[in-house]
Amino acid sequence: MENIVGYINANREKYIEELKDFLKIPSISTLAANKNDMLTAANFVSKKLDEAGMENVKIIETKGHPLVYADWLHTPGKPTLLVYGHYDVQPVDPVNLWDSPPFEPTIKDGNIYARGATDDKGQMYMHIKSVEAYFKTLGKLPLNVKFIIEGEEEIGSGNLEEFVNKNQEMLKCDAVMISDTSLYGPGIPTLTYGLRGLCYMEVAVTGPNRDLHSGTFGGGVDNPINVLAEMIAKLKDSNGKIKIPGFYKDVINLTKKERENFKTLPFSEKQYAKDLGVKELNGEKGYSTLERVWARPTLDCNGIFGGFTGDGAKTVLPSKASAKISMRLVPNQDPKKIGKLFTSYMKKIAPKTIKLEIKDLHGAYPIATSLDDKATTAAANSLAKVFGKKTVFMREGGSIPIVVTFAKKLKAAPVLMGMGLNTENLHSPNEHFNLNHFHLGILSSAYFFDEFSK
Amino acid sequence: MENIVGYINANREKYIEELKDFLKIPSISTLAANKNDMLTAANFVSKKLDEAGMENVKIIETKGHPLVYADWLHTPGKPTLLVYGHYDVQPVDPVNLWDSPPFEPTIKDGNIYARGATDDKGQMYMHIKSVEAYFKTLGKLPLNVKFIIEGEEEIGSGNLEEFVNKNQEMLKCDAVMISDTSLYGPGIPTLTYGLRGLCYMEVAVTGPNRDLHSGTFGGGVDNPINVLAEMIAKLKDSNGKIKIPGFYKDVINLTKKERENFKTLPFSEKQYAKDLGVKELNGEKGYSTLERVWARPTLDCNGIFGGFTGDGAKTVLPSKASAKISMRLVPNQDPKKIGKLFTSYMKKIAPKTIKLEIKDLHGAYPIATSLDDKATTAAANSLAKVFGKKTVFMREGGSIPIVVTFAKKLKAAPVLMGMGLNTENLHSPNEHFNLNHFHLGILSSAYFFDEFSK
Repeated sequence: MENIVGYINANREKYIEELKDFLKIPSISTLAANKNDMLTAANFVSKKLDEAGMENVKIIETKGHPLVYADWLHTPGKPTLLVYGHYDVQPVDPVNLWDSPPFEPTIKDGNIYARGATDDKGQMYMHIKSVEAYFKTLGKLPLNVKFIIEGEEEIGSGNLEEFVNKNQEMLKCDAVMISDTSLYGPGIPTLTYGLRGLCYMEVAVTGPNRDLHSGTFGGGVDNPINVLAEMIAKLKDSNGKIKIPGFYKDVINLTKKERENFKTLPFSEKQYAKDLGVKELNGEKGYSTLERVWARPTLDCNGIFGGFTGDGAKTVLPSKASAKISMRLVPNQDPKKIGKLFTSYMKKIAPKTIKLEIKDLHGAYPIATSLDDKATTAAANSLAKVFGKKTVFMREGGSIPIVVTFAKKLKAAPVLMGMGLNTENLHSPNEHFNLNHFHLGILSSAYFFDEFSK
Repeated sequence: MENIVGYINANREKYIEELKDFLKIPSISTLAANKNDMLTAANFVSKKLDEAGMENVKIIETKGHPLVYADWLHTPGKPTLLVYGHYDVQPVDPVNLWDSPPFEPTIKDGNIYARGATDDKGQMYMHIKSVEAYFKTLGKLPLNVKFIIEGEEEIGSGNLEEFVNKNQEMLKCDAVMISDTSLYGPGIPTLTYGLRGLCYMEVAVTGPNRDLHSGTFGGGVDNPINVLAEMIAKLKDSNGKIKIPGFYKDVINLTKKERENFKTLPFSEKQYAKDLGVKELNGEKGYSTLERVWARPTLDCNGIFGGFTGDGAKTVLPSKASAKISMRLVPNQDPKKIGKLFTSYMKKIAPKTIKLEIKDLHGAYPIATSLDDKATTAAANSLAKVFGKKTVFMREGGSIPIVVTFAKKLKAAPVLMGMGLNTENLHSPNEHFNLNHFHLGILSSAYFFDEFSK
């Protein structure tokens, strides 16, 4: 490892310059105007994989933006690792809030500022550089490696999902390395071993067949906003428990070890509340805040709309009110099953005076890897060596559907070894990536290749 | 009365032609582009009052659109009647839904179609023609009459309110005649003797200081939409009673006579529900639908808004949610007092995790005239004579603030002798006015002058 580490250290500045070139490409996947930039970015990735020493490098067309694939499979008997990442980025609006132009990478205080710096160009690029270090020093990798890099993560990964389903043999592997998450804090080696799932519903309540004058008709007929509010109020009890019958049935409770792990993490409820600007936190009784946001199912209204919402007063008794209501799920809850339970319960509590329409908009399965998994253990050991302290295990409250697809279809454990920080403004103006974490990430990747190959 | 009735009958067609000229003027008070049309309409009214025989006709400038005043005060010892009406009309959008152009009056099936036909040009004009009939046949009126016609009813009557406050001596009278309401049904002589008041509040609930990712933060912090829904759900109990402490304290309950009057009115709950497109009606337990919409206080959400309301799914835990909540009031509830009770209750039930802001947007006092009032009795008798059947007494669920101002400031009983119909599309495309009711309205006005003078 000494030579490899030496090579990575020696090339630190060169890698940053290369990352700058990558970050100059405005590869915004959601904008039609940037379609050519997507190709430029895909070409950049394939060129760098090729230069690093990977084989079979190819750009794979999809119905949308292309995938980039590469492999090197010359260590029979050793595990195979699939590295996933994405070269597409979020839009940059509102662009006037950026301190430096989003596609002119700018270094300030040890961070590189540009759209895509932390999400996910910088993080993905770490693994290409780790591969390069192996080839330039040893001429080979210690295990079999495949790369699959997509250009549609920010728009839902639809074409990659399809590709994975159809090309399971091509992508076959023992573990999937993904660096698209965050460290628990600066300099804290972190593995994310669980993601929540999602069940996202839309509920519409229709009362009268038209908007009515609330003076002329108020009191004679049920008001769909009031009805919807009353139904929402019946979704949770005063302890923050979700009242939908059967909702918790498939929940795998946190183990004692997991709860103890969470307790060891530096976390101040007071500071968390202060950062969010609330006087008090609140949630499901009997759980800590970290447990609530990482490992307990929740229910939130994401939007509500009905009647008059402009300035001032309009005396309308509206015909319709609707709400977006989503539930975050934990292993082993099934989003389809939860959607059905939600629908049955809402139908049960709806008064006969209104028409109820419910749509299941979107679902994602939850996932959690065993803390004893081989790849997870190898990653934890690698991070500890590079960062010089014990790796912490966290979960993430959000969902990354493609991670679940990899896990289910390829039957491979995901390793979420992210080097970002929650404070790095991903999806916002002034996105940046800490260059020390970039460097530590390349080292961690190199150590992981070694550890996992053993 | 015979001569007067003869004159009105003989001039039926002439009056309709004059009304057409009035309806051609696009006097939309809310649109700056129509400012000159407002003057044209005010001039039309003053000219017709003058031609009818009224004296002291004048156009009174205000900060907005002008008032038209006229009087004839030559019967000392007799009562003085103030006739109120408005020459402004609502906008015409969506104009493509009109079957004939809104300012090209068109007669079809005994109705005249034009913006302002029933609200309020046609109804107001009845009284000018009634006056004309007296002067042309008898050369005088049987009582003292004043007219005050405004051009800002559709935008809140702000300048007339101010004018009434400052000119109570000028407008002094014994009763105020207002034809700007509806008959209970076609051909049914109707007096509206009560209007509900209004207390219109806006409630904003703020949770976190910014929109959060509902995956990352969901479960850790109270969601302002859920909180707002839970607070709204606590405003009414399962019997439709409003739970705000003290809310019903000042309510004057309906008398036995009033309830019996309502019961005699032709009303089908089934048809009402069908018209509104609801399977079942609902409201405060223990009251009929007419009682609920006319004479019981109610609480309705007029609007609600928060979070993501576009198509599809966005996983946001919003910073803020707000609702417009209004209460219809009945005598002797005070909108200011009710606003305070509402605010205290909401503060009491708000969790400490959120910031609550409440604004009192708008208030109107309720009113109900005694069924034994002299002007009311005279109007009921006049209507019965003209329509040939017993006058029905109804209330109206909406508010007309200027009516309360007249009643309070001038200490004069309002007589709401409307000839419109709820089905005449006021404020909507294809507004119209039944020409038979127009004619009966002129006769009713003439009979009322006579009855009230006795």
